[in-house]
Parts: sequence; C-alpha cells; structure tokens
Amino acid sequence: MLIRPATKDDAVAIWSIIGPTIGAGQTYALPRDMSEAQALAYWMGADRETFVAEDGGRIVGTYYIRANQAGGGCHVANCGYMTDAGATGRGIARAMCEHSLAHARSRGFRAMQFNFVVSTNERAVKLWQSLGFAIVGRLPGAFNHPLCGYVDALVMFRAL
Amino acid sequence: MLIRPATKDDAVAIWSIIGPTIGAGQTYALPRDMSEAQALAYWMGADRETFVAEDGGRIVGTYYIRANQAGGGCHVANCGYMTDAGATGRGIARAMCEHSLAHARSRGFRAMQFNFVVSTNERAVKLWQSLGFAIVGRLPGAFNHPLCGYVDALVMFRAL
Repeated sequence: MLIRPATKDDAVAIWSIIGPTIGAGQTYALPRDMSEAQALAYWMGADRETFVAEDGGRIVGTYYIRANQAGGGCHVANCGYMTDAGATGRGIARAMCEHSLAHARSRGFRAMQFNFVVSTNERAVKLWQSLGFAIVGRLPGAFNHPLCGYVDALVMFRAL
Repeated sequence: MLIRPATKDDAVAIWSIIGPTIGAGQTYALPRDMSEAQALAYWMGADRETFVAEDGGRIVGTYYIRANQAGGGCHVANCGYMTDAGATGRGIARAMCEHSLAHARSRGFRAMQFNFVVSTNERAVKLWQSLGFAIVGRLPGAFNHPLCGYVDALVMFRAL
C-alpha cells in the first residue's frame, strides 16, 4: 500500500470514500447532508495536509492531519481517517494512522489528539488504543447517533 | 450589569478586551500575534453569537456561543469568555456564564462543553465547577504556557 499526499486529481476518489461515511452520520460529527464541495473543502482544507492510501492504483483510504489548536496548543496534531467501505478489515486505517504518527513527528508535533471518537465505533476505539492512544476524556451523550440515539464521545490522546 | 448581543459598533471595545488576553497567551490557544481584524473575525464570526457585558455604559466583558460540533454533535454548545483586565473580581465572568447557560437552553442546546481550559487558570476552573461543570477530560501537556511551559488542558462539560 502506498500512502502519499493527496492532489486535486484525487478529489473524486476522496469524495467516493468520505461521502458515504458522512452521509451515514454514525462516526463523524459532520452534517449528514454535506455537499461534495463542502465535504472536500473540509477534508482538503488549507489548514491541513491530506493523504490518500493507494492499493494497486485504487484509492482505498484517506486522512488529514492538522494542528488541533492554535497558539499555545499548536504542538498537538489532530487527524481524521476514512476507509473505503468496500475495503475495510485490511489494515488500511492502521496503516494510515501509523503513517500519520510518523508524519506528525517529522512535522515537530509532540502529541496527537482525537477530539471526538464516537463510543459506539468500537473498532476504531480498539484500533487507536492498540496504536498507543489513551482515552483521556468522555463526553456524556455528546453524539446523537442515527441508530443508537445519544451516545458518549471519547477524547483520545498520545504523546509522540 | 446588562448583557446584550454585540454589534459591529462594539468591535473596538471588544478588541480592547480580547487583544491583551490573546497577546498574553496564558489562557486561550490562539496565536499571540493575532491582528485586530483576525481576532475580531474569530470572536465575532458568522458561526457564533457574540455578547457583551455592559456596566454603567462601559463594556467590561464579552463572550461567544456556538455549536461545539456539527452534525450529530450540534446539540452541545461551546463558549469563550473574556473579562476586561481592569474589571476582574466583580463577578462578570460568572454573570456571562450564567447568561450563556440560559441562552444555550433557549436555543435548544442540551449541554455545554469547554474544550480547552488551561489547568493553570485555576480561577476559571473553580468558577466553571461552581457553575456545574465537571472536568471530563485532561489533555496532558497540551498547552505551552509562556511562563509555565507545557501544562495540562482540561475538558469541562455540563448538561443543560
């Protein structure tokens, strides 16, 4: 698998991954009715770096990395990852997270934080834990899940 | 004390409050060198409502309220408060927070979250606790304090 910086030419492939995930509304606190333009403006915004994971020439995942806060908080990175729905279970999210940790170190970040991991997304929680992240906060009922109702969101953190 | 929605005419007074606080860099994760235009674009942005606290015709404090997340997280409010450096200790922050809690309820928010309370800002931590907020997360070394170095930031939360 090749993980490389995204270009504008990847936008269609990126939308084909993030569109269904945003629309499902089960894992990200983003408006479910986001348009393609809005979603790409968010995922590929000027305030972040965006990467894609390519497998046999096909884009199977994407992630972004940015500073989680400005000013005195700018040494902590934040990332979001999405895998193509037809390519789950193949270690793509793990590979992207490992890539992002190395990239964050190379950029001088001292830690990485996930602000809002939906607690029902158990596979993600376990994956981040296996990659060294600890649950450092629990936001009670902070996510309105379309199937489960109000569920907790987790803040996860690790030093680099 | 009168707490009312801010107008464009309040911008100079708001900057006179938020400018020194941002420049000091001890309590907010914002760039210390933010210009007046950048700071006002942030504090009075289109994604939030901004209020001022007036005492005897003088603006002594300001706060904003916004949704902390989009989509499934949009039922949780987020606020930022700043008091004029020459008017601390008079209950202005408490009055603004009480106002914001009532306003959040009237807007249909179900909870309020502070994402990044600098742990060395003990007065604020105690004030928010006295107003019903609990510490639900601790971000280790997430804030680079200009005098204290890397200190923890706290996530605080309360239901409405």
